[in-house]
Amino acid sequence: MGLIVQKFGGTSVGTVDRIVAVAKRIQETQDLGNQVVVVVSARSGVTNELVARAKKINDFPDAREMDLLLSIGEQESIALTTMALHKLGIPAVSRTGSQAGIITDFAHTKARIQKVSGGDIRERLSEGNVVIVAGFQGMNRDGHITTLGRGGSDLSAVALAAALNADFCEIYTDVDGVYTADPRIVPSAKKMKAISYEEMLELASSGTKVMQSRAVEFAQKYRVVFEVRSSFNNNRGTIVREEKSMESVLVSGVALDKNQSKITVKNIPDRPGAAADLFSKLDHANIIVDMIIQNVGRNGVANLSFTVPKEDVRNAIEAIQAILKAWGCGEVEEPEKIAILSVVGVGMRSHSGVAAKLFGALSQAGVNIKTISTSEIKVAVALDLEDADGATVKVHDAFGLNEKN
Amino acid sequence: MGLIVQKFGGTSVGTVDRIVAVAKRIQETQDLGNQVVVVVSARSGVTNELVARAKKINDFPDAREMDLLLSIGEQESIALTTMALHKLGIPAVSRTGSQAGIITDFAHTKARIQKVSGGDIRERLSEGNVVIVAGFQGMNRDGHITTLGRGGSDLSAVALAAALNADFCEIYTDVDGVYTADPRIVPSAKKMKAISYEEMLELASSGTKVMQSRAVEFAQKYRVVFEVRSSFNNNRGTIVREEKSMESVLVSGVALDKNQSKITVKNIPDRPGAAADLFSKLDHANIIVDMIIQNVGRNGVANLSFTVPKEDVRNAIEAIQAILKAWGCGEVEEPEKIAILSVVGVGMRSHSGVAAKLFGALSQAGVNIKTISTSEIKVAVALDLEDADGATVKVHDAFGLNEKN
Repeated sequence: MGLIVQKFGGTSVGTVDRIVAVAKRIQETQDLGNQVVVVVSARSGVTNELVARAKKINDFPDAREMDLLLSIGEQESIALTTMALHKLGIPAVSRTGSQAGIITDFAHTKARIQKVSGGDIRERLSEGNVVIVAGFQGMNRDGHITTLGRGGSDLSAVALAAALNADFCEIYTDVDGVYTADPRIVPSAKKMKAISYEEMLELASSGTKVMQSRAVEFAQKYRVVFEVRSSFNNNRGTIVREEKSMESVLVSGVALDKNQSKITVKNIPDRPGAAADLFSKLDHANIIVDMIIQNVGRNGVANLSFTVPKEDVRNAIEAIQAILKAWGCGEVEEPEKIAILSVVGVGMRSHSGVAAKLFGALSQAGVNIKTISTSEIKVAVALDLEDADGATVKVHDAFGLNEKN
Repeated sequence: MGLIVQKFGGTSVGTVDRIVAVAKRIQETQDLGNQVVVVVSARSGVTNELVARAKKINDFPDAREMDLLLSIGEQESIALTTMALHKLGIPAVSRTGSQAGIITDFAHTKARIQKVSGGDIRERLSEGNVVIVAGFQGMNRDGHITTLGRGGSDLSAVALAAALNADFCEIYTDVDGVYTADPRIVPSAKKMKAISYEEMLELASSGTKVMQSRAVEFAQKYRVVFEVRSSFNNNRGTIVREEKSMESVLVSGVALDKNQSKITVKNIPDRPGAAADLFSKLDHANIIVDMIIQNVGRNGVANLSFTVPKEDVRNAIEAIQAILKAWGCGEVEEPEKIAILSVVGVGMRSHSGVAAKLFGALSQAGVNIKTISTSEIKVAVALDLEDADGATVKVHDAFGLNEKN
């Protein structure tokens, strides 16, 4: 018995029948004596439909209006899911993001959560209700609806689990859990029973599309233990928690992100602060820069390369053009599509040789490395897009992940 | 120059192209130097789609959840209309019903407006913005979204016009104005240039589907002058205002309501208060009873007939069964579909003979009258459904409405 937060994504509530299936799963959880808070996304497809309709009217829709528009997808899901629970005889109430007290900053379409009060959720739970909360959305302190950006419903679920001091959080999705590599690329990849927040974080930010990294960061910060599992079967998924007992594993997984672009800016002023100005501009535009290479300056100018998610390329270039105009020098090269392959594992902290083994495997496979970056538990390399899949299979094999389980 | 409230119904914002056309009309109004507040409905079809989806999940969806679900239709419209104005270079912001400070009672799906604060609308107008408000919806004092019932967007527009002390209110719809009779039934019917609130009210409550009667009542109470006109052309419509200068017209129009049912309750206690109990029960169920006939009691029991809108029949019968069970006597007969024909005109106050002329015309047409009811400016009769259209043509002719205008 405890308080469980369950999150169901867009494919899990994609049709009337699936909403009914979700309601039954919630019923099973409640039948075990648990209090249940459910976070739902918009049914898959709705968001794209709404965006398409908006773009027909205005190529550059206002971010505030976009948030107001997009938030209706989740509002539909919470009402329908609540009705499905009523049909099963289960008392339930729905809450929008703002009704659930999810307070964000003022950034529209990519707002950050500042506070989660939970609204009247505890009261409704103690009366025996299941509470169904709209994911992805919140409200800023001016009373305007905001959205949390891509995958924001995961963040809503984790933030609510933290605010309500939930015993467990379940992220239901259309995959079975977290694998040592993408099974579509590496058929011998294995599902992991448990991984640490840090590993999940590196995997999430390295192209393993299971969960948004902001949600994992939030879970780590507030020590929310959660499980990623499928809403289409009853298999246990992957539990994400503090690392403990995982020291023996050197590398836990190989992630591949094929949606990155490398942008090169040439002939920028070679003086302290120039790069800082440029990255602060990108930061203001809410663009996440991953790998950065600053070349050695010559004749008072330098070149700078960095990688950004493909969908941010246009905004990134706009932001850069603005600062180049202010400087009166520099140009942006045509962006290059690349892949980033990462090996991730908390074990590499106390072991050396991970990078060497990775480079060895890539070299044997004849793969050219364009850039390297490392963190405490990750080594990442940028590759040509066409080398990506083959390189992933070789690296997965080199680290012995096939035999794992 | 002034403050104009414009309301656009579901067909007016039914497609992307029509939303763009609405934006242009708003632009024209602003170009004349006006401040503009716009109330929009859900695009036509959306509400039915949402209801259908809800009913697939639960035959008797919870009213609160239904309101949350239905309110998304208008939320979509305000965001898209605002984006269309931005595209034209016009500063605009959208507001949901709750953001516009439309506070209602706690009745879901048929809430009544208690207060309209306007939120920050005045401030946004004074900055040069057009403000686009979601019709049909409000918020109760617990922060839950409510809806105002059928045609509620008209009420939103009139209530906002009153709260903001607007100079004029335009109700854009898919008809050209208010006619002396339904032109589909009486081809010689004429559009009226102006009518009084009372006439409009009697017409609205008598089956002329141009506007919801609650909106007209509200306009009358707060003396909001409004015009009903088409969003598909630039023709002037019908202005609705205090009566003045209209004394000379005896009868201004003939209304026909083919969506009524007659319910007969037999063998109920023939004592003071029995009928009152029954109608108070129907009132609590938010059912609007129109004509009532109490038959003379005999042997301590009486029969009672009354008419209700067709869509309320099921709820009405449920409410009646409950009270009959409490009494331990009485039964409800199978409801009978009927039509109600009304002649309406402020002129009949000071003229007698309207009823006589009406009955004469019906008698000449061989139409049997089932029930009669009168108000100060209306005489209404219940007819067999199959007699309805023919009777309307004859009555329209008998009152000389063909030659009018």
